[in-house]
Amino acid sequence: MSKKKNIVVPGFKFGAVKAGVKYKGRLDVGLILSDKPCQVAGVFTKNQVVAPSVVISKKRVNNGIAQAVLVNSGNANTCVGKRGLDDVKECTKSLAQITGLSVTNILMNSTGVIGEPLPANKIILSLPFLIQNARPGGLADFSKAIITTDTRPKLFSRTLEFGKKKVTIAATAKGAGMIMPNMATMLVYILTDADITGPIKSMLTAAVDDTFNALTIDGDTSTSDTVLLIASGASGVKISGKGANSNKFQAALNDICRELTEMIATDGEGATKMFKIVAEGAKTKAEADKIARRVANSPLVKTAFHAGDPNWGRIMMAVGSAGVNLDQNKIDVSFESKKGKEISVVKNGAISATYSENQAEKILSGTDFTVRINLGRGKAARTIYTCDFSAEYVKINAEYRT
Amino acid sequence: MSKKKNIVVPGFKFGAVKAGVKYKGRLDVGLILSDKPCQVAGVFTKNQVVAPSVVISKKRVNNGIAQAVLVNSGNANTCVGKRGLDDVKECTKSLAQITGLSVTNILMNSTGVIGEPLPANKIILSLPFLIQNARPGGLADFSKAIITTDTRPKLFSRTLEFGKKKVTIAATAKGAGMIMPNMATMLVYILTDADITGPIKSMLTAAVDDTFNALTIDGDTSTSDTVLLIASGASGVKISGKGANSNKFQAALNDICRELTEMIATDGEGATKMFKIVAEGAKTKAEADKIARRVANSPLVKTAFHAGDPNWGRIMMAVGSAGVNLDQNKIDVSFESKKGKEISVVKNGAISATYSENQAEKILSGTDFTVRINLGRGKAARTIYTCDFSAEYVKINAEYRT
Repeated sequence: MSKKKNIVVPGFKFGAVKAGVKYKGRLDVGLILSDKPCQVAGVFTKNQVVAPSVVISKKRVNNGIAQAVLVNSGNANTCVGKRGLDDVKECTKSLAQITGLSVTNILMNSTGVIGEPLPANKIILSLPFLIQNARPGGLADFSKAIITTDTRPKLFSRTLEFGKKKVTIAATAKGAGMIMPNMATMLVYILTDADITGPIKSMLTAAVDDTFNALTIDGDTSTSDTVLLIASGASGVKISGKGANSNKFQAALNDICRELTEMIATDGEGATKMFKIVAEGAKTKAEADKIARRVANSPLVKTAFHAGDPNWGRIMMAVGSAGVNLDQNKIDVSFESKKGKEISVVKNGAISATYSENQAEKILSGTDFTVRINLGRGKAARTIYTCDFSAEYVKINAEYRT
Repeated sequence: MSKKKNIVVPGFKFGAVKAGVKYKGRLDVGLILSDKPCQVAGVFTKNQVVAPSVVISKKRVNNGIAQAVLVNSGNANTCVGKRGLDDVKECTKSLAQITGLSVTNILMNSTGVIGEPLPANKIILSLPFLIQNARPGGLADFSKAIITTDTRPKLFSRTLEFGKKKVTIAATAKGAGMIMPNMATMLVYILTDADITGPIKSMLTAAVDDTFNALTIDGDTSTSDTVLLIASGASGVKISGKGANSNKFQAALNDICRELTEMIATDGEGATKMFKIVAEGAKTKAEADKIARRVANSPLVKTAFHAGDPNWGRIMMAVGSAGVNLDQNKIDVSFESKKGKEISVVKNGAISATYSENQAEKILSGTDFTVRINLGRGKAARTIYTCDFSAEYVKINAEYRT
């Protein structure tokens, strides 16, 4: 695995410019451009209030082919009436004209404030420089152009060997706030030079389900959530959807999605620590999801953990209010440090005989730990990724627009 | 209506003492004592992790008769294993011995930190003085003994005339945090001298559904939620469940519950303003509830309103993610001040032509306003009572236990 900045994925170029969409002097329009039409799969927000760019991109992704993705930050182009759709069409049509690509092979995403008209002219006027500026080593700049309240760009890549051939998978994400994806996350672009001849959509869905769909910062679901997997095929390695090659590729895809999910949780708005809530011993995965998500979204749990306070009573309160019929006397809770040290906190619904408040505080003082909740009623489990809740979150979101 | 402190409800006495349950020097054990056995109805938390005092009181309320309620704050006596039930039995048995009442007519509630053993001996030793101290005018002191992070006691009463006879209804509540009741709220005691010969439980349920069950501070559901309606019959006025008398009593009961609900929302942990989210034009009340509750629980909406920022895009985001299939182009949103001035904010899913940011900011700068969301797909409506989300909430809850 590599976190180095100069990532190259054969077949792709990346551009980024300062178009002044919302603020001056920051990269805010980015471009992914492929030499040739690529295989593509996408998952998108299920929010019923949805960005026009999602509506159009979703339709175009259904063709299975994409060659460019245009992204702006600073404005979500959402809830602006019919002009929202027109602006997406106008921006992508202009890009098609300059590049000679088919407009149906161009996708677009917008992220930022909801309800303000998109300054489409600024984006269109930035296109010539954006294309001129696009280069194979430009992914790091692209990842800067798509962020909003994120404190840092999120970038990850991995190279796999298939015999003498190499396949690169690289990905970038934006997160920060309004993050509890339902089928996707804010914006994620996964790029590879593999030649995915098998079911690219099901490979993406498999990876997303346990990663981006298991992430919550604040329980609020964005109107722009999009994850795209784009494959140029430039490596010449075929991924057919079955067999050893396919398994290897899927495993790497899962890893990348999990790494980015942890990066987004770590960089949640105002977050000082990332933690995982694991619900296990559940009857079904859906039941485990309800429990783990309820605990991960509880303001009382998130504020206690912010203070490093092992206030496990709040965990029990949240578990009990998740809408699952439970026997509270079968519930066990443990805390686990990043290094794997695990201590028993709750046993059979009450404080564990071996519980040590000092040890618990030590684990919660870390910036990365796991809370394990065993319901004692089955074998299903689910992990949810989240972060603490700080006064800084309130500050960021009470000042974001004004 | 009356907010005066010296409230008397014929047939009842109230006591309060400083027992040192958690802190020294504050009233923390309270007692409601009736001259005779009373009619009683209760609704209780649906949290699957539940306080032993709720388990026992729920069972005893089912008999329809109660004569005393013992309440402690500072300790929820929850998730403490089998000793939790023993402690409730021990406390109420001791009270029965001193007073000569039947133990099955004694209810108990505990509110405070979860997971610490109840200092039952402190409560038991306080009983003689508590009983000695009980008096008809003691409701104000009782209301102080039951609060935790509330900044003020919550007390309300009303006198109704039935011919030449008078009926008093008085009520007190505690709220503050861990408040999104499911069938009840934290602790509410409604006392009357009416003689309720009709279905007391259905009268209470009718009042609670649109008031305490429509309240959320932080989306977290307590393990101790309890609402009790206790009727001494001392007025000699019969409320049979049908007819004009019954309608008049039910209307007053609804009013009292709504007033207390607003008081609890206003005094939510860290709250600086109370507001109502009204979802209307829905197909069903359940659908309207989902929408209004989702908006009321959105951290992004609550932090924007804390800043007085009319960030209506976040309202649209929350509406769209409530799990209801909607046509976003039919959604209207308006803001209404306490004095009834209403301005259109969103029309058909986009900004209203008559929208004025200045007017919107003026309404949101108030400490009491209403957000109206019309879904344009039916006639059902639901009002949810809530408050803003401040850095102070984080501070209170990151410091509560430590």
